[in-house]
Amino acid sequence: MTDLLKTINSPADLRELTREQLPGLSQELRDFLVDSVSKTGGHLSSNLGTVELTVALHYVFQTPYDRLIWDVGHQSYPHKILTGRRDKMDTLRHYGGISGFPRRVESEYDTFGTAHSSTSISAALGMALGARAQGEKRVAVAVIGDGAMSAGMAFEALNNGGIHKDLPLVVILNDNDMSISPAVGALNRYLARLMSGRFYAATKKGLDSVLSMAPPLREFAKRLEEHAKGMVVPGTIFEEFGFNYIGPIDGHDLDSLIPTLQNVRRLALEGEGPQFLHIVTKKGQGYKLAEADPILYHGPGKFDPAKGITPAASVKKTFTQVFGDWLCDMAEADKRLVGITPAMREGSGMVDFEARFPDRYFDVGIAEQHAVTFAGGLACEGMKPVVAIYSTFLQRGYDQLIHDVALQDLPVVFALDRSGLVGADGATHAGVYDIPFIRCIPNMLLMAPADEAECRDLLTTAFKQNHPSAVRYPRGAGVGVAVTKELKELPLGKGEIRRTSTAKNSPKVAILAFGTLLYPALEVAEAFDATVANMRFIKPLDTDLVCELAKSHDLIVTLEEGAIGGGAGSACLEALSAAGIEVPSLVLGLPDRFIDHGDHALLMKECGLDVEGITKAIALKLGINPKKQAA
Amino acid sequence: MTDLLKTINSPADLRELTREQLPGLSQELRDFLVDSVSKTGGHLSSNLGTVELTVALHYVFQTPYDRLIWDVGHQSYPHKILTGRRDKMDTLRHYGGISGFPRRVESEYDTFGTAHSSTSISAALGMALGARAQGEKRVAVAVIGDGAMSAGMAFEALNNGGIHKDLPLVVILNDNDMSISPAVGALNRYLARLMSGRFYAATKKGLDSVLSMAPPLREFAKRLEEHAKGMVVPGTIFEEFGFNYIGPIDGHDLDSLIPTLQNVRRLALEGEGPQFLHIVTKKGQGYKLAEADPILYHGPGKFDPAKGITPAASVKKTFTQVFGDWLCDMAEADKRLVGITPAMREGSGMVDFEARFPDRYFDVGIAEQHAVTFAGGLACEGMKPVVAIYSTFLQRGYDQLIHDVALQDLPVVFALDRSGLVGADGATHAGVYDIPFIRCIPNMLLMAPADEAECRDLLTTAFKQNHPSAVRYPRGAGVGVAVTKELKELPLGKGEIRRTSTAKNSPKVAILAFGTLLYPALEVAEAFDATVANMRFIKPLDTDLVCELAKSHDLIVTLEEGAIGGGAGSACLEALSAAGIEVPSLVLGLPDRFIDHGDHALLMKECGLDVEGITKAIALKLGINPKKQAA
Repeated sequence: MTDLLKTINSPADLRELTREQLPGLSQELRDFLVDSVSKTGGHLSSNLGTVELTVALHYVFQTPYDRLIWDVGHQSYPHKILTGRRDKMDTLRHYGGISGFPRRVESEYDTFGTAHSSTSISAALGMALGARAQGEKRVAVAVIGDGAMSAGMAFEALNNGGIHKDLPLVVILNDNDMSISPAVGALNRYLARLMSGRFYAATKKGLDSVLSMAPPLREFAKRLEEHAKGMVVPGTIFEEFGFNYIGPIDGHDLDSLIPTLQNVRRLALEGEGPQFLHIVTKKGQGYKLAEADPILYHGPGKFDPAKGITPAASVKKTFTQVFGDWLCDMAEADKRLVGITPAMREGSGMVDFEARFPDRYFDVGIAEQHAVTFAGGLACEGMKPVVAIYSTFLQRGYDQLIHDVALQDLPVVFALDRSGLVGADGATHAGVYDIPFIRCIPNMLLMAPADEAECRDLLTTAFKQNHPSAVRYPRGAGVGVAVTKELKELPLGKGEIRRTSTAKNSPKVAILAFGTLLYPALEVAEAFDATVANMRFIKPLDTDLVCELAKSHDLIVTLEEGAIGGGAGSACLEALSAAGIEVPSLVLGLPDRFIDHGDHALLMKECGLDVEGITKAIALKLGINPKKQAA
Repeated sequence: MTDLLKTINSPADLRELTREQLPGLSQELRDFLVDSVSKTGGHLSSNLGTVELTVALHYVFQTPYDRLIWDVGHQSYPHKILTGRRDKMDTLRHYGGISGFPRRVESEYDTFGTAHSSTSISAALGMALGARAQGEKRVAVAVIGDGAMSAGMAFEALNNGGIHKDLPLVVILNDNDMSISPAVGALNRYLARLMSGRFYAATKKGLDSVLSMAPPLREFAKRLEEHAKGMVVPGTIFEEFGFNYIGPIDGHDLDSLIPTLQNVRRLALEGEGPQFLHIVTKKGQGYKLAEADPILYHGPGKFDPAKGITPAASVKKTFTQVFGDWLCDMAEADKRLVGITPAMREGSGMVDFEARFPDRYFDVGIAEQHAVTFAGGLACEGMKPVVAIYSTFLQRGYDQLIHDVALQDLPVVFALDRSGLVGADGATHAGVYDIPFIRCIPNMLLMAPADEAECRDLLTTAFKQNHPSAVRYPRGAGVGVAVTKELKELPLGKGEIRRTSTAKNSPKVAILAFGTLLYPALEVAEAFDATVANMRFIKPLDTDLVCELAKSHDLIVTLEEGAIGGGAGSACLEALSAAGIEVPSLVLGLPDRFIDHGDHALLMKECGLDVEGITKAIALKLGINPKKQAA
């Protein structure tokens, strides 16, 4: 870091600089970013793409009085650096450190917490109307990528925002033709055409030649040109939605950005209504390796900036990879299988599947609602859709899951990646609620594999059912159980006993583990000589097994990496109540609060879901010392 | 009914008719509809608007081989009548009768169950791709209203559908400039401009005069016109999305409709790609009273077709009215209050509020996702948003509830109308899952009033909290408890004892009632001399009260009009488990299956949630005869 960036502790400092100093500052910011992210890990390509935009925005807009909302928010690192958090960038996404996303609790400059895409225009519209109601003359600015713009929610907000004719609302479309997966959909093609510049230009050029050839037609041509600019012939679709469209301009050129933003801010404040600025940027801009492969540098771990990302030493297979392999093998075995992703090809492990089965691969864009109902339509025609979706993003398709899939009992498999805590991405991305929100839905099946091999088996099991089903599995790797090539179905709704208590003169404990917590459970069980069941199914729950264990043990302990309220443990309590069995129980899972980012193991420890925490909880419940018990 | 309609028992019969016979058939169909709906109650305006369209669609398309999907589906009565269900129309929406919406289990002509809006294009796209994968040459047709088109999900589907360049997918926009509430949003203004016909026409007319004046410019003008039709200057936004746009045409004129649909079908089958047909219809068409007030005739009960709907004799206040009154009074008392509805002004009881506080009323259109995050944005600026939303429609904004509102702990009040079973609308509209899907979310408060007066108090209580909250109340009226003008806050998280058991020599029963089931509980209690608690709060649950009752009674019975899995009873079991209290319990609520339409009281009886059913369940659990017990 050279001298300039060091002096910027708030946007007010930035606004003291001359325009001539800004390119140098941007270069420093970019260098700082590469250095910083290479040490902490985090999002890189998107942040390199928004350096100049961030500098220009804070230079022109009176932040924090003006409201700046970063859609998705993983591109907000330059914003964090310029708003007093430069010195905390070494704690980014680490336990106790600053978040990788904007958070209202972190800074007054983070006006709206983001992470899931396409929320910014709705929030900005609310803020703009809220400010007006209180007589405040501020501008609300939403910065949204072209990928995020394709989600329905963004359109709902544009549709609603465009009717407020004099509202100081600004939408900046940061168009880099790439969400995490390559952008898909008609809108992106449209934006590409806008970017090509052929848009008004061609018509205007045509009209010029009309004018040169036939001077008396000048007046008519002038009117036609007015028509062409939006009075009769339609303008851009953003103009149709009531926004004043400006662009596209180069989002790395401060000499374009700053006067344009000044103009946009003036128009907004002068009552000219919602403004839509289309800028074009390049992900990874300024760091050659990221420019060449923005997907690889989307969210890297630590790396050497000089050498770039090097292939990691062979590590255990992730659940995502287990899913990706299974998907290809199952597709080979059953030609009815189709795979659907809402813009998460890489994250969901579908790169191989797309390469091998391009006709059966559907990336529908950031459009979870559509993804789910689209799968329903395919299922109606006898196809067997597999929707690969992060647990947290299925929240976006919840109504469609109930109303379009479950109600019609259509055989769609939901592969719920990132169930449970997700580590560095934090609360916004955690898959904590899927058990309660799915198990209340009739017809749904819900499974939780304990390890990699079982993940494959349960995916096969889900696929073989003629009902909607979901298999939830966590981010990252499991314990490393070898996965065979077999496509094996497990008995539906049946758990298994993995360890049997031999306790005689002491309280007999049964631990009912849902998902990967089976392995800590097996360790914990040693201390208490406990029985351990691998439950596998949350719905249908193996109620026979639950009741049998309840009758033969003195304490039932349930374990899940999910919200306690309405979770799998709660399902066990319901089963016991229905069977008329009263037995002491201990329901362990994630507590009723949002859990911040940090190392997964640390977070699990904090929630008392590591071996030590579980052991303590059981001992406390039994009123004993587990060590003594084990002895 | 005259003779023609009687002969139509399937679309095949219809296709035997001559073109000349169709207007007569349409008239018969319209008469039959008015007569039929006036006897059963149901949706009227929308069905009168789609008579000719339905006739034309089944005349032209080879249903059921071609797939016809009715978005929302409440306009599918003519479709039901023409597809073999004429004789069942007298059972419409009644217990055991046919549904008011398309249902796959009801007919092979109902290719996709609909009810919630904006799903049809996604489903049709899935079907079209599924058919292609199997070598079937069918067309998938989605019929969608202009209101439904404003929802994000429809845009997601258009965006995804438009990239399939030769897919036989047809979208028919049925434009009547009205959803249930008057249509709002920029899209509707845009459609109005398209309908005005000024669109291409003006430019073409202009070009004609160019041609007449300067013949040598003909060639240039021709190219300019090509540009104007979509090559450079944009076409309609639907063309931007990759669809071939045709229209607008008169949707009541069979002479326009039939050749246009034939053309559309041919284009679709010949590989010309997704087709978008824009038709214009009038809600209520052909029945003067409905034409004059399509909102009043949107979904009437029984009425005399000759006299029209007459004001109902004074009935008990509905919960919807209680909410509407409260909203106005609270708005009067606190100027930070703003009211938001996703296109449900009438249904949610906000007509008065809009009239009295137009600047604080926001109808955002059918856009639940946006509605929730928009409320979040308003709350960030210190406003106090109240989102009036049916329980079933909050499913559409679930991710936004978690990610944008609860995670940031923003004080937004959700007034959840139609919680529980909803009667004639059936499973699609039932508000059965809100307890499990809300109570697992940190920071959320969730309340269930037992009657009208308490509904008002709990709305006030929710409004006073500095956290997100939801108040769930059912469709229709309660027991009729008088509501005062007071704005009274109840103690947060505290239930109340409404009846105390005096049982001594028999098992002591405590009934914990959530919501309106309090009143049946009080009746049931007489038979067992049971204690009855009105719990009021699902979250925070009054765990002290739950534990106290568990300790002092021999059986705990929980009662809720919601899914058992993860519901309020389940929350009680969790509380007892956490407190280490083992007590026999009986968790009563809605069973784990979708519950069809029918009279609310009948459905509750079927679910064992009437006085008799609850009594039986408790007696069975106690192993006693309740009569004897009472004696």
